[in-house]
Amino acid sequence: MAGLGRVRIPEVVVRRLPVYLRVLTDLQGEGVEVVSSAELAERTGFSSEQIRKDLAIFGALGTRGRGYRTEFLRERLLSAMGLDRPVNVALVGAGSLGTALARYTLTRGGGIRLVAVFDNDWGKIGQRIGDVEVRPLADLPRLLPALQVRLAIVAVPAAAAQAVTDLLVENGVQAILNFSPVRLDGRGRAHVQNIDLAIELQSLAYYAVRAAEAREAGG
Amino acid sequence: MAGLGRVRIPEVVVRRLPVYLRVLTDLQGEGVEVVSSAELAERTGFSSEQIRKDLAIFGALGTRGRGYRTEFLRERLLSAMGLDRPVNVALVGAGSLGTALARYTLTRGGGIRLVAVFDNDWGKIGQRIGDVEVRPLADLPRLLPALQVRLAIVAVPAAAAQAVTDLLVENGVQAILNFSPVRLDGRGRAHVQNIDLAIELQSLAYYAVRAAEAREAGG
Repeated sequence: MAGLGRVRIPEVVVRRLPVYLRVLTDLQGEGVEVVSSAELAERTGFSSEQIRKDLAIFGALGTRGRGYRTEFLRERLLSAMGLDRPVNVALVGAGSLGTALARYTLTRGGGIRLVAVFDNDWGKIGQRIGDVEVRPLADLPRLLPALQVRLAIVAVPAAAAQAVTDLLVENGVQAILNFSPVRLDGRGRAHVQNIDLAIELQSLAYYAVRAAEAREAGG
Repeated sequence: MAGLGRVRIPEVVVRRLPVYLRVLTDLQGEGVEVVSSAELAERTGFSSEQIRKDLAIFGALGTRGRGYRTEFLRERLLSAMGLDRPVNVALVGAGSLGTALARYTLTRGGGIRLVAVFDNDWGKIGQRIGDVEVRPLADLPRLLPALQVRLAIVAVPAAAAQAVTDLLVENGVQAILNFSPVRLDGRGRAHVQNIDLAIELQSLAYYAVRAAEAREAGG
């Protein structure tokens, strides 16, 4: 397995791996020891061809006419993603959305472990989310390296988000899940995934209103 | 403007329109009356060429050497997206994530208006999120058509999510933003956008751990 973790994986594949992982975990729970690419296609919604291509990156070629060994493949993917050990995550912004995200991570983080929460609001500092106490942002440069945090969730107001991101990047964070309504720049040092709820809802409004009108008009 | 709302817009463009909308709203707030595609590129992160192509769909061709009229373009996009009037949204699932999403929608929904919240938990029914009272799921078939809801947010446990989706679709919902950790099937009648937090975090773990190792190794 040495070095396997260092396979460079295309971004589109990285986004599909957790889906494989969830399906493989389900299959293991059901006692399924071997799974075909056709069954994986059924459960993931990806094509068999896509699946064979993705999994070949990890040298998992399956056995002709049978399929992939569930447990082996799952462990291979966990290792490739860096999830063979718990991954520490910090949250910045303990508002209602941030707190809900943190609780979600605590209950179903899938190998992701919440270890630090930061906010600048004195009303929030000292409160607890699970076992984790909300700390002032000033503690971040000391705590993040000590806790070996390289992954962070940002849920602060738009005006503060880039400054928070810069602080995270300066203190060793390499990947950020951003819920602030602004696109963040990882300064070439952190991978940023932006989830913008207003943008998601507004995109969907098109399907709820305009595309619906077109359908009703038979267009 | 008649009929303009019924232009069929490619999905990738639908996802960029709210970004244009936000930038145009900012520009209007700054008193900027005309904006070039280069300035839009700077603010959105999309290329000038992409922007000109996207906006041409709406017949907004700009003025040679000057650019687009900010207010006119903004109104055109609002109309094309169905956001020229408030769009009603319902939430199913008033847990901590659902409640946070609902509060977010109330404060910065960008034309999206929360009008109904449903849950089956007697501890939650009767509580209020803003002005909206949490109702039992049994009220959904009566309330959704009465409130003209065609857009919904789903934030229920995985095991309940597809049944809730089917109920929404049967009662006129045409677009769903899904936060349940399972891919939902809109039965060919609703557009579903899945946001899976565990999958987002696990994808990012790769960049926080493995890609970081590769960088450190000079790979």
